[in-house]
Amino acid sequence: MSILVVGSVAFDGIKTPAGKVDRCLGGSATYFSLAASFFADVRVVAVVGDDFTAEDQEIFNKRGVDMSGLQRASGKTFFWRGEYGENMNEAHTLSTDLNVFETFNPKIPASYLETDYLFLGNIDPVLQTNVRKQMSNAQLVAGDTMNYWINGKSAELAESLAGMDILLINDGEARMLGKTNSLPRAAQKILSLGPKVLVIKHGEYGATAFFKEAGMHPFRAPALPIEEVVDPTGAGDCFAGGFMGYIASQTNLNRDVLKKAMFYGGVMGSFAVERFGTERFKDLTNKEIEARFQLFRDLSHLD
Amino acid sequence: MSILVVGSVAFDGIKTPAGKVDRCLGGSATYFSLAASFFADVRVVAVVGDDFTAEDQEIFNKRGVDMSGLQRASGKTFFWRGEYGENMNEAHTLSTDLNVFETFNPKIPASYLETDYLFLGNIDPVLQTNVRKQMSNAQLVAGDTMNYWINGKSAELAESLAGMDILLINDGEARMLGKTNSLPRAAQKILSLGPKVLVIKHGEYGATAFFKEAGMHPFRAPALPIEEVVDPTGAGDCFAGGFMGYIASQTNLNRDVLKKAMFYGGVMGSFAVERFGTERFKDLTNKEIEARFQLFRDLSHLD
Repeated sequence: MSILVVGSVAFDGIKTPAGKVDRCLGGSATYFSLAASFFADVRVVAVVGDDFTAEDQEIFNKRGVDMSGLQRASGKTFFWRGEYGENMNEAHTLSTDLNVFETFNPKIPASYLETDYLFLGNIDPVLQTNVRKQMSNAQLVAGDTMNYWINGKSAELAESLAGMDILLINDGEARMLGKTNSLPRAAQKILSLGPKVLVIKHGEYGATAFFKEAGMHPFRAPALPIEEVVDPTGAGDCFAGGFMGYIASQTNLNRDVLKKAMFYGGVMGSFAVERFGTERFKDLTNKEIEARFQLFRDLSHLD
Repeated sequence: MSILVVGSVAFDGIKTPAGKVDRCLGGSATYFSLAASFFADVRVVAVVGDDFTAEDQEIFNKRGVDMSGLQRASGKTFFWRGEYGENMNEAHTLSTDLNVFETFNPKIPASYLETDYLFLGNIDPVLQTNVRKQMSNAQLVAGDTMNYWINGKSAELAESLAGMDILLINDGEARMLGKTNSLPRAAQKILSLGPKVLVIKHGEYGATAFFKEAGMHPFRAPALPIEEVVDPTGAGDCFAGGFMGYIASQTNLNRDVLKKAMFYGGVMGSFAVERFGTERFKDLTNKEIEARFQLFRDLSHLD
């Protein structure tokens, strides 16, 4: 099965206690597609500028990611510069240059229209809704959002959420969107806005899935305690990529598949943070993924 | 098997978004002993003042807790007053009146000396070490501490830690004691100070056990997403009580027992927060405990 992801392809300048890179490939669609590519065929719709090189393209090619939906605009690619302190959970943004991303208007190539799985990366909810409409045959639609849209475009976000089956956000976003500090109560409110499943990512503590269906208990997947986090950038997008990738690799979406997808999400997030940018995905193998899946299982299973 | 706990018996005045109580029974030894009493025989060493009534005593009696080590001093019992905001994870202390607890000098009754399991509640590490010496025959010693001792009595705490097999603390305490934000790295440092096992409690995210033994992977137990937390006071002590109680109920301490103990710790913590003070333990049944254990298992197990 194939997944279409719409989001950002960007360059990042990142400083962490483990080191520094001036420019590496990043962006939500990049991380998502590389992580998902270990499980399913992935198609990307995004925009880049003149500074996107054949070498950058090669990172996607090596993982067999279909980039025929990559739009090229004149100008520079979205550039984000950020820094992480000792507390790796939060990035301090130093600069955000939207560049060609500012006028991004995602167009779905004809060859993508029959894609079964759609992931709406963290972009303007108006664009998410436009894409959702173009992809009316999608079997399953998942998405992401962030504080900026929750605060600034709540009506537009509500429309986008109404078209999603699964929403994946982090603790802070869930509290803001659900307007309460209690995650279970925030989950109830958010599920009333549209999604059937809400996955709340807790960073180093794992993630919890909440279900709209009455009487269906939440499910919690652990994260690995990682000694040396080199660069947390993209961990959440890689979680989403592993999660959606695993779902797309299975014939049906039932509770068991969703539970395993939560584990694979955590697994892919844990690889992402081991090196700067997308570096870890260059030589990652399926065997390593399976071994870490077992480690996550052992980490939290009684028997 | 029996457990001896040394800690505080106190009265608390608590305000949370769910309500308010002016005075209820509290303290680390109280919460610990009530939670542990569902699994093992428990003996308490603590001090109370003239205001400790037969009614207060009855709360322990009902759970069969042995209070022959309860010291009575003239004056008032330790009183803590605190408030929780919307973010239930942190208490805002309004007042701490140590009262008779200020000069507490734990004496172990002769009838307690052969107790196999010892839990050193969160008291001055000098007193912890004194008790540890009096209980030289204990099979297993676990303990707790807090920021106040980590900052103020680090040498004395180091001596106490050297005598513990298991230390149970929360995220903030682990980061402070390990002098790093990375929990796995903090764990390594703390394990080098003495304990063979370090249990870090993550509040609503569960808890992780780290092991000194080379090559032994950590183990993570989930917590239940609880919609309505009425009063978080004592949740950590109840975790320790369920954890130690389950260990004391088993013949050997191996990795499997420790894993289940982590789950039972979370289970007892989750009951504690459902009502103010120790209220929930008045009518709690073993059947309810087993049902919640299964719920925790289902919450995070793949199969």
